[in-house]
Amino acid sequence: MGTAFDDTSRSRQPHRVAIPPAKPFLQTLKSNLKETLFPDDPFRELKKQPSASRKLLLGLQYFIPILEWAPRYTFAFFRADLVAGITIASLAVPQGISYAQLASLPPIVGLYSSFVPPLVYAMLGSSRDVAVGTVAVASLLISTMLGKEVSPVENPKLYFQLAVTATFFAGVFEASLGFLRLGFIVDFLSHATIVGFMSGAATVVCLQQLKGILGLVHFTHETDIVSVMRSIFTQTHQSKRKSYFFWINAMAPLTSVVLGSVLVYFTHAEKHGVQVVSMNTRRNLKKGLNPLSITDLAFGSPHLMVAIKTGIITGIIALAEGVAVGRSFAQYKNYHIDGNKEMIAFGTMNIVGSLTSCYLTSGPFSRTAVNYNAGCKTAVSNIVMAVAVMFTLLFLTPLFHYTPLVVLSSIIMAAMLGLIDYEAAFHLWKVDKYDFAVCLGAYVGVVFGSVETGLVIAVAISLVRMLLFLARPKTGLLGNIPNSMIYRSMDQYPNAESVPGVMILQIDAPVYFANANYLRERISRWIDEEEDKLKSRGGSSLQFVILDMTSIGNIDTSGISMLEEVKKNTDRKELKLVLANPRSEVIKKLDKSQFIKTIGQEWIYLTVAEAVAACNYMLHTCNPKHVTTAEANGQDSNV
Amino acid sequence: MGTAFDDTSRSRQPHRVAIPPAKPFLQTLKSNLKETLFPDDPFRELKKQPSASRKLLLGLQYFIPILEWAPRYTFAFFRADLVAGITIASLAVPQGISYAQLASLPPIVGLYSSFVPPLVYAMLGSSRDVAVGTVAVASLLISTMLGKEVSPVENPKLYFQLAVTATFFAGVFEASLGFLRLGFIVDFLSHATIVGFMSGAATVVCLQQLKGILGLVHFTHETDIVSVMRSIFTQTHQSKRKSYFFWINAMAPLTSVVLGSVLVYFTHAEKHGVQVVSMNTRRNLKKGLNPLSITDLAFGSPHLMVAIKTGIITGIIALAEGVAVGRSFAQYKNYHIDGNKEMIAFGTMNIVGSLTSCYLTSGPFSRTAVNYNAGCKTAVSNIVMAVAVMFTLLFLTPLFHYTPLVVLSSIIMAAMLGLIDYEAAFHLWKVDKYDFAVCLGAYVGVVFGSVETGLVIAVAISLVRMLLFLARPKTGLLGNIPNSMIYRSMDQYPNAESVPGVMILQIDAPVYFANANYLRERISRWIDEEEDKLKSRGGSSLQFVILDMTSIGNIDTSGISMLEEVKKNTDRKELKLVLANPRSEVIKKLDKSQFIKTIGQEWIYLTVAEAVAACNYMLHTCNPKHVTTAEANGQDSNV
Repeated sequence: MGTAFDDTSRSRQPHRVAIPPAKPFLQTLKSNLKETLFPDDPFRELKKQPSASRKLLLGLQYFIPILEWAPRYTFAFFRADLVAGITIASLAVPQGISYAQLASLPPIVGLYSSFVPPLVYAMLGSSRDVAVGTVAVASLLISTMLGKEVSPVENPKLYFQLAVTATFFAGVFEASLGFLRLGFIVDFLSHATIVGFMSGAATVVCLQQLKGILGLVHFTHETDIVSVMRSIFTQTHQSKRKSYFFWINAMAPLTSVVLGSVLVYFTHAEKHGVQVVSMNTRRNLKKGLNPLSITDLAFGSPHLMVAIKTGIITGIIALAEGVAVGRSFAQYKNYHIDGNKEMIAFGTMNIVGSLTSCYLTSGPFSRTAVNYNAGCKTAVSNIVMAVAVMFTLLFLTPLFHYTPLVVLSSIIMAAMLGLIDYEAAFHLWKVDKYDFAVCLGAYVGVVFGSVETGLVIAVAISLVRMLLFLARPKTGLLGNIPNSMIYRSMDQYPNAESVPGVMILQIDAPVYFANANYLRERISRWIDEEEDKLKSRGGSSLQFVILDMTSIGNIDTSGISMLEEVKKNTDRKELKLVLANPRSEVIKKLDKSQFIKTIGQEWIYLTVAEAVAACNYMLHTCNPKHVTTAEANGQDSNV
Repeated sequence: MGTAFDDTSRSRQPHRVAIPPAKPFLQTLKSNLKETLFPDDPFRELKKQPSASRKLLLGLQYFIPILEWAPRYTFAFFRADLVAGITIASLAVPQGISYAQLASLPPIVGLYSSFVPPLVYAMLGSSRDVAVGTVAVASLLISTMLGKEVSPVENPKLYFQLAVTATFFAGVFEASLGFLRLGFIVDFLSHATIVGFMSGAATVVCLQQLKGILGLVHFTHETDIVSVMRSIFTQTHQSKRKSYFFWINAMAPLTSVVLGSVLVYFTHAEKHGVQVVSMNTRRNLKKGLNPLSITDLAFGSPHLMVAIKTGIITGIIALAEGVAVGRSFAQYKNYHIDGNKEMIAFGTMNIVGSLTSCYLTSGPFSRTAVNYNAGCKTAVSNIVMAVAVMFTLLFLTPLFHYTPLVVLSSIIMAAMLGLIDYEAAFHLWKVDKYDFAVCLGAYVGVVFGSVETGLVIAVAISLVRMLLFLARPKTGLLGNIPNSMIYRSMDQYPNAESVPGVMILQIDAPVYFANANYLRERISRWIDEEEDKLKSRGGSSLQFVILDMTSIGNIDTSGISMLEEVKKNTDRKELKLVLANPRSEVIKKLDKSQFIKTIGQEWIYLTVAEAVAACNYMLHTCNPKHVTTAEANGQDSNV
């Protein structure tokens, strides 16, 4: 081992660069499509099975995961799921009515939404930890986007219809993403975007909830900070600050609701200015399970486009949270969940929800974390929660008539303050300034503009960053690490030494049309600068330019033209162009475009070290100009 | 040399991976901005000069290149430029009136456009070969986009005003791109896009010109092939095919125009159904130089937005052609042109043009090639051409009253047929199928949809390709090339041998939010598959996972989270994660985010070979599980 290089300075080409055999186009396309759409190879197990009936069972289990784990379900699991389910139900009830209030929907819709969707998810979901429920940010989005179109106070029936229609489209959109295996679209919402976006939305929600806490009646429905602040400052002068129950927001949500309601019931505070749930809605809280809402789907409404837009935006935001939460906890417990399958589960749950008077649900982080901490084992905890909510719907709803709004506002604020994640933002600033800019863009966009503005800003900054990486790839000179055959960037390793007469240039990105012109100019500038430097030192002149192509993952025809022009340029300057380690995709295309013939197969080396050795051999044993003419097969006759 | 590896199997870490010192954020930002906006370092020469007056002169020469080369201008140069100038003038006159007809503008506007803009370009342009003039594709675009808004037949004055207004905005847009150093936006129109787009536009123009050649009067103004074909098929039945002069299109443009006009003059064919130039326009051809058109700029018009949109689209298309043509010929003659400076020159020339009754001009390929072949030396050939056109305007315009339209159509078609570059398309298909798809998208979009559709399709496909490269980076296993210390992809080098107990994984793209989730799942699948494979063979089990990070040019915080999760995953499977050759940007961020501490500095190697040597040492001298626990500083206590 380790002796392979010892004779490279004598033998010209110890290792050939392999040109992989050309694959048929359709085969390449198929394998690329598979890698793009089925990166996790979901049917791997299925393919291993020999019998057809076993395949059918596995296929069914793939689409309906409960069939897979139910037979193995034990009583010990159930005991754990029961405890977890009751725990999350105690969170689901107050959060349900609070978030429904945030979405400007009747509180009972929040309870409906904690009954049907968890049952659907328990059948189809592949996560064992996700607890299904409504989410604050999506609720806020619904009230902002639909509230602009239809007033929930003046026209509550139409508003409710638009909300379930939006939920329907959110579900269709989510399920389609999953079916079409386009789940990776959600990945374009980066961690930094989510941090900034959530913090911004939480800030807006907290400001809005001052309405409930300060007991303001004429509160703006706009979400941006300017109108909220103006609204607060103009109204606090008019109305008396009713902060009787302000201290409650530190306590557990259910305790707050129960205590608040009991207090109002006995003191009749609702008659002395404390706003309670029933006052805030046109639909009273009625006992009973979810009524069907198929006829409420407003497909013929003139506001249909707004409902669709709201559905798609809230759908993707809810999906991003739900899938990320599911993935994190799966990783934690070391099991695998399939993102695209999760999307189908979330989508189906929202489609069914929209038919049964529910609005948008997802897998909220807070409720899932409680579920996990309470020791849930499977999705049965969601079923337990649904049953508990069902009992509430059947027997306990009249009690919420006395729940003061201030309690709900406090619950929302308590949840929201946890979402303002300044520590994460600080971490972004410390590690990656660009990610911090993305996060800040999302935050500022949401707080000072609108939710959509924030999203667009953050996604645009993120994409520009990636495109800039491609449009302006890093290039740099390599040098020899002393006492080794290793060549590394002289910027990163200041002790690396340049090789006399040889310039080794590394390109750090695929060569595409977007950077071909830049690279051509940059490479020619590197050569000019190197020649100037050598001239000013009066030492040996530049004879060889080695391009280290290790990091060039792919190339297109514009990139090949660029290489051809670099070759013409070096020919003109009487320099020899040498390639080191072209990768599979690149060497294939260089071969097809005849560039290998232009440059000469003998000037392509497997490693930089071998290329340098060959150059050194040329420099020391013969006149390089003579070599150039002899090697170039008469192509550069002016040399 | 070559002995450095000999003792790596014993010594643990012969070469340390350097963590470059942290630079202040503002300094990094400054150098990044400089590389993005000033990649060619245009003021390099300026900075070298010591005296202020010399700096001023160089600065002036930078912005007005004629100041730089005029003092060195010789009579020999002038003789060459005179010949070239007269040659291109003989092309400019017939092309000018033909393309003006294509743009539905009075023919004389085409001549105006070959007088003022070349003079402006001669002052400001840095190319020695570009011959300025109107271009066919932009002319077509103007008539399509403006013709939808205002009919050039019914309202020629307003149409002319919109055309000069669009030219003004095209100039402002082009100059702004140059001033703001955003010239790289033009690079997003890839070679493949241009080939497909030009061929498509040429096809459409040829079909449209059948109007002139077949002598059809009621011809559609839509550009898409369906309406054109329908128009031809419905009209050829009605009108007689008047192909008297069909044979002329093979001859040189000027000869055709002169012969055609002479023939019409003597036979009075214009009275027997042959359409001639003067019949086709409301404004007759008047003698005299360009009238001012400042008052024609329609800033207050209700059609202003259409003019701006037309200006921006035609501006960028014309710019792409002009800059690409200038660059190609500069490369050919081995001098350098600055893309951004060229944009300022083109922009200024169009702004001035829009004030002097000219419409959009650029550096068309055909005229520039003629200029080059005629032996031009400097931009003086443009001045000669302008003077020749001036004489034509002053004394010869009445002659064109007798030029038959069919001659102009033939000139256009002859130029256009050369643009349908099926050989280039075939080359794209052979070398890069994806580029071929881009080209085909542009072609089909232009021919069956509209010019904008074609552009949008092609740019979208190109961007999706780049984003897919980032979203689905290639990963692959590395193996040892026999009898060497070299590790290369086992796909590309089938003779590469895997190392027992060690999996070496290479990632071929920067790790960003867009691929972090994919990479996490893909890496975990690689590990599972490798473990399955080893298990089925019953050999040694997997102990080490080496990530070759050579091609990871950058990483963001989502990428770092991904690595942290991969580390947790390998810990859980009792595998040791080893990093090889993290690059400058990556190691900096791994350091800041404390990931180096998590993985242990001693598990980061400079080369794959050194990492493998260390793993082998562990495998053969001690129990790896013992090592894992001992090395990991208690972080993975469950091992």
